[in-house]
Amino acid sequence: MYTIIVYDTLSKNCSKLHKTLKRFLNWNQNSVFEGELTEAQLFDIKKLLHEKRAADSSIIVYELKDAKNLKKTILGEPKGNTSNII
Amino acid sequence: MYTIIVYDTLSKNCSKLHKTLKRFLNWNQNSVFEGELTEAQLFDIKKLLHEKRAADSSIIVYELKDAKNLKKTILGEPKGNTSNII
Repeated sequence: MYTIIVYDTLSKNCSKLHKTLKRFLNWNQNSVFEGELTEAQLFDIKKLLHEKRAADSSIIVYELKDAKNLKKTILGEPKGNTSNII
Repeated sequence: MYTIIVYDTLSKNCSKLHKTLKRFLNWNQNSVFEGELTEAQLFDIKKLLHEKRAADSSIIVYELKDAKNLKKTILGEPKGNTSNII
């Protein structure tokens, strides 16, 4: 399924979350990752995020069965490593 | 259509983008807004964001015809003012 993950955490926790997410997904913007995942990968990623996130962090996981219905527009300069995935 | 907007900008530009987006959408996390918009509202919001964003900012607009296909999970404490929209 197509997955978008955004996180809001303390700056000292950012590197840990970034490293975890980039193992599975494309880095899209400061704290935004996205890409295609299997059910098993999504299970793993959620487990890892639970372990590695700071206590007061908030992480949102959006899951879509099909990315064909998703339109993406970037205003400004694309950041990260995926400007043309969708 | 259902819209998710995430931004990455200088801290001094955050307040301007936040104020613009909260006129139309629900604040979801630090720099994440989402909600249902008409085509006209989406046009207006993109125009306003172009005017108000800092030069080196990056704003991603995700558009979905139907939010029924979108599953949302929050790890940690929900922030913002919409934890149960979807």
